[in-house]
Amino acid sequence: MRRGHRLRLDIAYNGREFHGWQIQPEARTVQGELRDYLTRLLGRPVTPVGAGRTDAGVNARGQTAHLTVATDDEVERIMRALPRMMPDDIDIRAVRRVSHDFNARFSATSRSYSYNILLVRDIFRPLSWHVFRPLDRAVLDAGAGAFCGAHDFTSFCKASSLKANTNICEVSHCAFEWRDDSAIFRVHANRFLHHMVRNMLGTLIEIGVGERDNDIPDILAARSRSAAGKMAPAAGLFLEEVTYPEELMDPEFNATAPGEGDEP
Amino acid sequence: MRRGHRLRLDIAYNGREFHGWQIQPEARTVQGELRDYLTRLLGRPVTPVGAGRTDAGVNARGQTAHLTVATDDEVERIMRALPRMMPDDIDIRAVRRVSHDFNARFSATSRSYSYNILLVRDIFRPLSWHVFRPLDRAVLDAGAGAFCGAHDFTSFCKASSLKANTNICEVSHCAFEWRDDSAIFRVHANRFLHHMVRNMLGTLIEIGVGERDNDIPDILAARSRSAAGKMAPAAGLFLEEVTYPEELMDPEFNATAPGEGDEP
Repeated sequence: MRRGHRLRLDIAYNGREFHGWQIQPEARTVQGELRDYLTRLLGRPVTPVGAGRTDAGVNARGQTAHLTVATDDEVERIMRALPRMMPDDIDIRAVRRVSHDFNARFSATSRSYSYNILLVRDIFRPLSWHVFRPLDRAVLDAGAGAFCGAHDFTSFCKASSLKANTNICEVSHCAFEWRDDSAIFRVHANRFLHHMVRNMLGTLIEIGVGERDNDIPDILAARSRSAAGKMAPAAGLFLEEVTYPEELMDPEFNATAPGEGDEP
Repeated sequence: MRRGHRLRLDIAYNGREFHGWQIQPEARTVQGELRDYLTRLLGRPVTPVGAGRTDAGVNARGQTAHLTVATDDEVERIMRALPRMMPDDIDIRAVRRVSHDFNARFSATSRSYSYNILLVRDIFRPLSWHVFRPLDRAVLDAGAGAFCGAHDFTSFCKASSLKANTNICEVSHCAFEWRDDSAIFRVHANRFLHHMVRNMLGTLIEIGVGERDNDIPDILAARSRSAAGKMAPAAGLFLEEVTYPEELMDPEFNATAPGEGDEP
């Protein structure tokens, strides 16, 4: 039953100079860079599959990806050499052997994002949304809290990205952490729709500056993108973590009977 | 004796997306951006003169510049509107009326620079030189100390930028400030030659990793660029402050007799 090894990569990147995660023919993307380095290292085309397709300019501290390699020697080479090949804006933080059933995208049970908001002008902190208008912190805290629980997030999904299946997401944490000159907006959920965090935050900030009523439940109920506010910019967003069932971290774990579910 | 007003601008910029301070025909520069905004604001071409021509990728917290405007109304407009016109990577930190004898470049009595060194990998702190090899901090402290005093810095000047006049600079402070995962290299001097801080630091780091003998006095004495080490990268360097005689900060101060020294 020789079928190679499934590897998990944990990846951080500064999104500033990437057109997002997913490979595009003419643009620099994180997946494209990783494919190029892996292909150079192994001498054959290898493309990692990511947990999520972050958009252009979005950052990650905890993106994950999987790939399958043929031999122990390839595992060894990736662990030893791949992290050192990275450019200044990608960091391979971990390489580990996992179960063949591990799929970075479809095995994920939850994801968490953070978003930096800067309340003062600071040209040396570009990975933030600079919001200079006074914010009502109590109103923002209440608005964030209204997202918690299981809701249909259609109003906060990029309209052209809506799929036929459910748009219900279970948000287990949604809150601001306030500091003197900045804030961090954190969201943890079982799944996210396209642009969801940036649409949630953009809408909350419109509420927090007094441009819009504090009506998150109404906006959720409308199930229409036009009910929500403008999307927050990409640069402040970080994919922090993707979580998986513990057993898939065990290279020997095998959910399928021998012969079934073989991977390429 | 109506001759308009001399203004001083204090300017910070993130050098990452600039080809340096000085106007170039086809490249984005800080001086070029300021000229464009001033020209738009005043309806006639106005170019600020900077204290120093920082190179491509170099940052500033305390660059200064001067310009002359015609009327009180123009002063008012610049103070009120110019800071708000700035893009995300330029910050006008102060606009003030100064003496007509103030010249941002030629009146300067000293300048100070800082340089960020990062001793760990951190893709979210790009305005640093990432040095991963172990550094001998005592050797670096001693090497920095050897720069203090008045020396001929020919060995640390870009060879093609040497001028006929003196290359003696008086360094009043040159030291590292060490932290767990980073260091700041600070230099204060009456004047600096082209690439001087980056050549000083590049050479010191070669000494600190053991690639080169701790021979700063010999390198200074050689008065040849080839005696020193490689230049440190631009991104870690910050022009921190330019100092001027106090009396030039007084708009009423006038060193020249009436009728002499008229400014355009």
